[in-house]
Amino acid sequence: MNKLSFDLSAYLKENKSLVESCLEKILGQLDPNLELVQAMGHSLMAGGKRIRPILGLAAAKACGKNILTALPACCAIEMIHTYSLIHDDLPAMDDDDLRRGLPTCHKKFSEATAILAGDGLLTHAFHVLTRPESLFEFYPDKSILLELVGRISDAAGVNGMVEGQMLDMQALSIAGKNGEKNGWNKERLLEHLKKIHGLKTGRMICVSVEAGALSVEAEPQQLACLMNYADNIGLAFQVMDDILNVEGDPEIMGKAIGSDLLHDKMTFPAILGLDKSKDYASGLIETSLTAIEGFDKNADPLRAIAQYIIDRDR
Amino acid sequence: MNKLSFDLSAYLKENKSLVESCLEKILGQLDPNLELVQAMGHSLMAGGKRIRPILGLAAAKACGKNILTALPACCAIEMIHTYSLIHDDLPAMDDDDLRRGLPTCHKKFSEATAILAGDGLLTHAFHVLTRPESLFEFYPDKSILLELVGRISDAAGVNGMVEGQMLDMQALSIAGKNGEKNGWNKERLLEHLKKIHGLKTGRMICVSVEAGALSVEAEPQQLACLMNYADNIGLAFQVMDDILNVEGDPEIMGKAIGSDLLHDKMTFPAILGLDKSKDYASGLIETSLTAIEGFDKNADPLRAIAQYIIDRDR
Repeated sequence: MNKLSFDLSAYLKENKSLVESCLEKILGQLDPNLELVQAMGHSLMAGGKRIRPILGLAAAKACGKNILTALPACCAIEMIHTYSLIHDDLPAMDDDDLRRGLPTCHKKFSEATAILAGDGLLTHAFHVLTRPESLFEFYPDKSILLELVGRISDAAGVNGMVEGQMLDMQALSIAGKNGEKNGWNKERLLEHLKKIHGLKTGRMICVSVEAGALSVEAEPQQLACLMNYADNIGLAFQVMDDILNVEGDPEIMGKAIGSDLLHDKMTFPAILGLDKSKDYASGLIETSLTAIEGFDKNADPLRAIAQYIIDRDR
Repeated sequence: MNKLSFDLSAYLKENKSLVESCLEKILGQLDPNLELVQAMGHSLMAGGKRIRPILGLAAAKACGKNILTALPACCAIEMIHTYSLIHDDLPAMDDDDLRRGLPTCHKKFSEATAILAGDGLLTHAFHVLTRPESLFEFYPDKSILLELVGRISDAAGVNGMVEGQMLDMQALSIAGKNGEKNGWNKERLLEHLKKIHGLKTGRMICVSVEAGALSVEAEPQQLACLMNYADNIGLAFQVMDDILNVEGDPEIMGKAIGSDLLHDKMTFPAILGLDKSKDYASGLIETSLTAIEGFDKNADPLRAIAQYIIDRDR
């Protein structure tokens, strides 16, 4: 594929703004005087790449259909992603004070408010999926909406994202020398790391593509190819994230691969080394592109997003 | 209604056991080795009256239909109720160590695990509603299931239970002498208290009855009567809870109505006094019984539950 044939930057900007205008509309139906709604809005409108909803829209586009039909599912997924960030940032979890340059929800409001704002976003995401007619011009029919609730709740819940966050927290005690002593060799660590990412972020990325395609009634064969694409870019995204974290950190780069500093975090460069991690990410992206090679130029946004994942600086 | 014509105690026992066997089946489909699933199960199977699902089953019965069709919605509602208890008990919220004689979820596991167990129960509740066929013998058709997701998510979310918990936390700073100084007279306090209870517990009680009736395709007229019934018993239940708390606490009973101890908590006896609170609860129950007087003896469980609310000792 000719990288210059598609203006990804303009595409991302346009679709991000489409998604954000819908998220604002969803918030606009709630009482702006409520502190709860303000806390939900603080996190939901704090920016971010909106990569999940954009992937959903791009999947609908790849099927040659009206992407606006995919917006209800895409917005619901972004609301669920945002709730997960609010809860992950809590003192009992990752204890982060800042996200995207802004105070985290519990810092700006309170811990209790942040827990409830997360709960509110998660619950309201499913509500939005059941009542799209008041918010969106186009939407899937009812049997598809129910199917979307089913697939999204599966990806976000105990078989997906929530269990992924649980494993991620538990992983802290596995990584490092203690892990090695307890039989966590390289292969086992790698499999476990892939499992954590697959659950914590992979399933929501995959369901974004899946929900976009389902919304526009993709053929089963199309859906299968798109989900294969999504599985591979989801993992590639995490591998690249780990790589960029290492390359961006002079303290880590100053030490040899395999040093304690690398080893104490369970990351792909720590397990595979930096070069093999890069090869791994490239291979995943190649597989993702092969998965959608049967699609016409409507799939160019998906292709450009895949390429961007290994080309991005940060 | 002749109170002796219906054995409520046997009815409650039988339906509680029906609900609990389904909740166990839902948990049984998840991996029992996961700490997350164990934490969800700890709270979900910790007992309790199961009053919400039983009300749903009783509403289906009142319509003369197969109550088993209402089970998916009833179980989803109980899962959502349980998640709300887990999050309410957290240190940042009510900071409770015990619930129903057992350690709360964050005490038994950890704060992070409790947050995730709540998130998992909430998310999985919606999943259960979309895939009833693997769990239940009878279930509503797909368009009704989508409507159930819509109504339950509305009652549980920012327009209902989540905002109710938010108001309940904020109410601590309104109650007592500070409130009076700031123009919170008796009428305004009473309205505000009714609003808190209406959102925090009333909407979920109402949607339990509504979901039970909708599951069996109740007529609009039946649905309206049942929701009127539910609104009134929901509030009566809260008024009686406040009354029983006062009567059960010798420290409060030893002081005059209107004492600081009473005033510092926003409760019905604190605002109305004990006798007027009892009259208020009785009036609500009378209204609830009138609302369903058009139903035949299939509504006897609903009638007996209403009566029980003002007759119970605790």
